Amino acid sequence: MKKSPTAPRKQAASYSLGLDYGTESARALLVDTRSGEELTTCVFRYPTGTRGVILSKDPNLARQNPADYLAAAEFLLRRTLSLAKKHVKGFSTARIVGIGVDTTGSTPLPVDADGRALGMNPRFAKDPAAMAWLWKDHTSTSEAREISERAREHRPHMIARCGNTYSSEWFFSKILRCARTSPKVFNAAHLWVECADWIPAMLTGTEHPDTLQIGVCAAGHKAMFAQDWRGYPDAEFLAMLHPGLGALRSHLRGRALTIDQPVGGLSPQWAARTGMPAGIPVAAGAFDAHLGAIGSGIEPGTLVKIMGTSTCDIAVAPRTDRFPEIPGLCGIVDGSVVPRMLGFEAGQSAVGDIFNWLVDVVKPGGGTHESLSKEAAKIAPGSSGLLALDWNNGNRTVLVDQLLTGLLIGQTLYTAPAEVYRALIEATAFGALTIISRFEEFGVKIDRIINCGGIAQKNPLVMQVYADVTNRTMYVSRSAQTCALGAAIAGAVVGGAHATVAGAQRAMTGVKPKSYKPNPKAHAVYSELYPLYRALHDAFGTPTPSTLGHVMKRLIEIRSRTRG
Amino acid sequence: MKKSPTAPRKQAASYSLGLDYGTESARALLVDTRSGEELTTCVFRYPTGTRGVILSKDPNLARQNPADYLAAAEFLLRRTLSLAKKHVKGFSTARIVGIGVDTTGSTPLPVDADGRALGMNPRFAKDPAAMAWLWKDHTSTSEAREISERAREHRPHMIARCGNTYSSEWFFSKILRCARTSPKVFNAAHLWVECADWIPAMLTGTEHPDTLQIGVCAAGHKAMFAQDWRGYPDAEFLAMLHPGLGALRSHLRGRALTIDQPVGGLSPQWAARTGMPAGIPVAAGAFDAHLGAIGSGIEPGTLVKIMGTSTCDIAVAPRTDRFPEIPGLCGIVDGSVVPRMLGFEAGQSAVGDIFNWLVDVVKPGGGTHESLSKEAAKIAPGSSGLLALDWNNGNRTVLVDQLLTGLLIGQTLYTAPAEVYRALIEATAFGALTIISRFEEFGVKIDRIINCGGIAQKNPLVMQVYADVTNRTMYVSRSAQTCALGAAIAGAVVGGAHATVAGAQRAMTGVKPKSYKPNPKAHAVYSELYPLYRALHDAFGTPTPSTLGHVMKRLIEIRSRTRG
Repeated sequence: MKKSPTAPRKQAASYSLGLDYGTESARALLVDTRSGEELTTCVFRYPTGTRGVILSKDPNLARQNPADYLAAAEFLLRRTLSLAKKHVKGFSTARIVGIGVDTTGSTPLPVDADGRALGMNPRFAKDPAAMAWLWKDHTSTSEAREISERAREHRPHMIARCGNTYSSEWFFSKILRCARTSPKVFNAAHLWVECADWIPAMLTGTEHPDTLQIGVCAAGHKAMFAQDWRGYPDAEFLAMLHPGLGALRSHLRGRALTIDQPVGGLSPQWAARTGMPAGIPVAAGAFDAHLGAIGSGIEPGTLVKIMGTSTCDIAVAPRTDRFPEIPGLCGIVDGSVVPRMLGFEAGQSAVGDIFNWLVDVVKPGGGTHESLSKEAAKIAPGSSGLLALDWNNGNRTVLVDQLLTGLLIGQTLYTAPAEVYRALIEATAFGALTIISRFEEFGVKIDRIINCGGIAQKNPLVMQVYADVTNRTMYVSRSAQTCALGAAIAGAVVGGAHATVAGAQRAMTGVKPKSYKPNPKAHAVYSELYPLYRALHDAFGTPTPSTLGHVMKRLIEIRSRTRG
Repeated sequence: MKKSPTAPRKQAASYSLGLDYGTESARALLVDTRSGEELTTCVFRYPTGTRGVILSKDPNLARQNPADYLAAAEFLLRRTLSLAKKHVKGFSTARIVGIGVDTTGSTPLPVDADGRALGMNPRFAKDPAAMAWLWKDHTSTSEAREISERAREHRPHMIARCGNTYSSEWFFSKILRCARTSPKVFNAAHLWVECADWIPAMLTGTEHPDTLQIGVCAAGHKAMFAQDWRGYPDAEFLAMLHPGLGALRSHLRGRALTIDQPVGGLSPQWAARTGMPAGIPVAAGAFDAHLGAIGSGIEPGTLVKIMGTSTCDIAVAPRTDRFPEIPGLCGIVDGSVVPRMLGFEAGQSAVGDIFNWLVDVVKPGGGTHESLSKEAAKIAPGSSGLLALDWNNGNRTVLVDQLLTGLLIGQTLYTAPAEVYRALIEATAFGALTIISRFEEFGVKIDRIINCGGIAQKNPLVMQVYADVTNRTMYVSRSAQTCALGAAIAGAVVGGAHATVAGAQRAMTGVKPKSYKPNPKAHAVYSELYPLYRALHDAFGTPTPSTLGHVMKRLIEIRSRTRG
């Protein structure tokens, strides 16, 4: 809380606002900075495309309309004020001390020399290349491969920081793809900006490239930005990929902020447009997962799993003398989560999206998530005989390979939809276990797992399966909106309500009383299934020769036994 | 036609009747023996169980109520007469010259000392072990393995005749399983009889073990019966498996008939019960596929594919000096199809059943076979990125292994039901190609492929995919009921209307004018997909180590290109 010299009581309320930009919608959360109490929340569904996403016949393409982001901000800020005035006792607009922003990512968009999104220019209104390239856009796989290869040859220290593989989901892959396939858009772009940076810049009127501020989270995790080599990769390297990328380098910022630093104050225009107080600080933006981890109470020893359409696994650790390297981990970035700590990001390219695929695209028996979960909860581990790989959208950790697909094995003539649903849940749990094991093998101890996001809140079956597969208790974050809460924590810190992120977390976060403890009998079966998952994982995900003749037979054996 | 000394014209009509016992229903077909013209047909759905099959929570169990077989015979014979009297010009019951019978198999049932089915004894009315063990019952996998192992050690010449592997679908596996798990039923059984033998025996009143006749088709293909070793395996070998099996041997017949031989004449009881002429000869029974091949016009050089819930692939060849051996082929039996020729049987454990699984159990988007076929026909080969194994019910040829399951690979977040449907069709076509290649590798040349059965008649998409995958023209049998027609041909021969099966086939069978020619462009894509199918086939179906890291990537590459 900004201390006023006349502030009568230590405990006077102050509020901060978190804006959380997701894949289908954006939401705002107004919280009490003293307790984390969530006072108002509202949601804005992006109007463009299919549930907010511009698609094409290429299943790899996924874009968003940047105009939707601004429409969301305007709606959410206005709506928050009107809700707060109506429902929050003693509310005063003046007591809103700061705003934080989180978004999906890497979701870069091309902007012109004034920082305006090309996608909002009528000239490009129908061109998907001019839109925001959504995190799950996988059109840039060959570019990612090229960047990885060039970097391994010429900048091995940079690529090592992101698990030796640069992803098609990331900043430079997407920009390079645009340069190659949509030169008109590429040439019209003065700069490419992460959505996480562009929204705070728009809100504070600092979108002009001379004043634009960037966050270290997006830059560090997705654009090989590190202080060790003074920011982004050098122009010489980028020019090897494409001359235009080399030229772009001079427009990119050399300094990146942590979430406890403001990019500016809310601009008078946005204040007028929304009724929010002009000048209140807006924190540097960060990715949803990273702020979700903050909102879940991340600290060293805790893994936060943000379980949504995809999953991010976030850990932090004190800085070390030698910068750690963990093969297959998307990124390790200083300050990307908690300022002045190492931030680790791993993840699964699709989790909820796989369940959604089954329910919404395959539509087995007209089942809903609720009906299928209810049936699946009755199925004993192993008894379906099914095993799946969770790669319908590629594999982010530990294979870092988008050129992978789903796999289902064990079907009979009687395999029921709920069995497939459960097998897909189990597959994502096996994927999660693979990530946890990789963390621990490389010295990042995981003592506690806190889950947040829609699935953690809504699907007890998923949580129980994860507990049983990993043999660890699954805690669920107290907040149902941890990303927005994390953003609000950033807002609270830049607004002065707390001196540090850790202090704000202590005051504003917590876990639910209900946790999910592993069932030893279920875990015993999963201990037999996991090696089979790993056999498939390694056979299809690596060039190593494998022996798989036992897999179907073992599944049948386990099935027979667990059916009793 | 039985020649009467006063027969006025050579061309006077005579009729024969085929009784075809399938998995869900039985049908009768009355044909004109001169032309094969199909005069009347009728169907009886088995009343017991789920669509005629007794199931349990063990997905391997599939039984049938023998009472349903007799109810079917009574209904069908009566109904045929009433239909013929009403609709066939100049029909006379007296001109029915013979009856042939085909059934599923191996479908053995336990009978008492009078040849009566134990399943019809009120004492066992609720015991699935006392029922007919339907061909697709897979409860006996461990017994099959044991029989294979013992036979390889002690009777290698016998097991070589059935591809070195004895199947869980076969006669002795099922009986041994019963001996082990249901001793009460086993001990109450005087004899086990194939459904294909039991029905003709009941119709002719020869069901008593002293008079019971058996066909060489069932005995030779499923019970290691061969003249070389004087019939069934010897008692010493059977006793190694179970003392009761050794004892059973003395009740089994030493001679087996071909389909041009009668087991007897229709009994007065059955004549009275149905109105059919007493005494007309009933041919030795055979399996549906083998008589389907007859009804499709099988001859050396022709492969007949009977495409139903499962598929049987039948070929014949002249006898050779050395009895041929083809690894992975279920059986090679002298006289099992065309008398005095070698009969070859291969097959796929599930084809239509896999499509039915998707439509009836998974129920994707509420699609029907019609709607999914229509959509799937629009999907270019390779463009779904999917690949499947057709093993939801195990693999009969060439792996001879029931302990295998389905597999689907290549799913994205957008994979649609019709794409899965098409992938399953393609998987069965790849399985078919694997069988054709195996035949040819071992010298059984395939010049022509004739398809029959429900799928061949009803699903042009399946036929086209098979043509494109195999690069061969798919002909379709003129008759929609080739199994019943084949049974009627047997009836015509035992009834004297034709001197030989080959002569009867020339008069009574043919193919449809419409055939399916391979599309070179589609075949080119399938030529790329088939090696990937084989890679999965060998990896999961054999103990050989494999490299599979390329499979998903190749599928994505082919997908991208074929969508282009």
